[in-house]
Amino acid sequence: MKLTLVGAGPGDPELITLKGIRALQQADVVMYDALVHPDLLEYCRPDALTVYVGKRRGAYSCVQEDINPLIVHYARQYGHVVRLKGGDSFVFGRGFEEVEYARQQGIETAVVPGLSSSYAVPAAAGIPLTTRGLSESFWVVTGTTKAGQLSADLQLAAQSSATVVVLMGMHKLAEIMAVFAQQGKTETPVAIIQNGTLPDQQLVVGQVGDIIDKVNESGVGNPAIIVVGDVAGLSQINIQAIVSSNVAE
Amino acid sequence: MKLTLVGAGPGDPELITLKGIRALQQADVVMYDALVHPDLLEYCRPDALTVYVGKRRGAYSCVQEDINPLIVHYARQYGHVVRLKGGDSFVFGRGFEEVEYARQQGIETAVVPGLSSSYAVPAAAGIPLTTRGLSESFWVVTGTTKAGQLSADLQLAAQSSATVVVLMGMHKLAEIMAVFAQQGKTETPVAIIQNGTLPDQQLVVGQVGDIIDKVNESGVGNPAIIVVGDVAGLSQINIQAIVSSNVAE
Repeated sequence: MKLTLVGAGPGDPELITLKGIRALQQADVVMYDALVHPDLLEYCRPDALTVYVGKRRGAYSCVQEDINPLIVHYARQYGHVVRLKGGDSFVFGRGFEEVEYARQQGIETAVVPGLSSSYAVPAAAGIPLTTRGLSESFWVVTGTTKAGQLSADLQLAAQSSATVVVLMGMHKLAEIMAVFAQQGKTETPVAIIQNGTLPDQQLVVGQVGDIIDKVNESGVGNPAIIVVGDVAGLSQINIQAIVSSNVAE
Repeated sequence: MKLTLVGAGPGDPELITLKGIRALQQADVVMYDALVHPDLLEYCRPDALTVYVGKRRGAYSCVQEDINPLIVHYARQYGHVVRLKGGDSFVFGRGFEEVEYARQQGIETAVVPGLSSSYAVPAAAGIPLTTRGLSESFWVVTGTTKAGQLSADLQLAAQSSATVVVLMGMHKLAEIMAVFAQQGKTETPVAIIQNGTLPDQQLVVGQVGDIIDKVNESGVGNPAIIVVGDVAGLSQINIQAIVSSNVAE
């Protein structure tokens, strides 16, 4: 009886770790989320049971309270359960709750970290969360708290000099930008990246004061990462640099 | 002529991504840092040139200003250069500077994100940086700024409710703990993890008020990650949970 939590990474199926692949190859049961790339299931043994426990598109919907006992059920019945989750399962992933529940039921547990979208998606779009002279720290906040409110941490984050990354925040974008505008940061660069690291990745870059218009024009939406801070402007520099280097060649 | 920046992950060589392995397999030249696991070089082609540009142990020491032109030199002479760096190269990794320099010289660039130690090392030690009811955000700060001072962001971070992660901060541990103590946080849990994800990983857990004594007793030192916040206490709960689950089986 074993539960291994595996982070699938931000989207691109090649951004899973080797350790994650090896766990998938050994699993008797793989329970996976909506944001997991379907190609990753090809690593599973042909006789492994694969179970979708995603929450997207309003179809069959599993709440966390259902998933925890389901993990225990499969572990007892089949042996080794791999729980495959998008990004990293310990960064807003509720993976810790699954691990704790399983442990309390006497099941051995292991954690294989995955690439968190919080920094990997900006990186793949040419945005470093820190870089000398522009930012020496970064703060990752969720847009959606348990109570459905904007996190109180966001108020503090907006006052700081940190690069601020907001996950799961697109439905509250206007509220989030208002928090930064209250701090006089209307000209601070903002980047929004949808489907980061995937072929249909979309990047919109603007400022706190005009990003909502740009989002409306471009139609960019969930699942997306919001980056606020001077580094967010670097993606544009990079795009120009790529263009000029192509011309130069 | 191409530069691919590859993040090697936090230590365990199986925590590199599949995309990172594929880049290593294609490279004509691999330039690697001190914190990169030697097993990763086995993915290189037998005819690939491997170049150590690490800074540890005071032996041959490469400064950033030397590395940038060296990358360009190797790309022009041999073709595809992979720059293999510990953790993720866009999180305090100075990777952005390397990419920008190379682009300005007309070299094509790509970035393959790696697992950042900031959250992957705590995760592997049983500590989620966020979890419902304890923490809804996390802030990653470096202990060492360009000027050698403690980052000003740390003062703000200590006031916030975020889980605070300090990288490269062990030589300033007393100063860092004093910042939290000034906010009345002497009883806030602190975890220090040395050589995270490797067989010789060491974990020390205490509070802001007593962690320095515990560090001195245990002899834990660099390279280490400092985690400050209620979630840091969860590693102990887990260890107890593992013990009791073993007994129960």
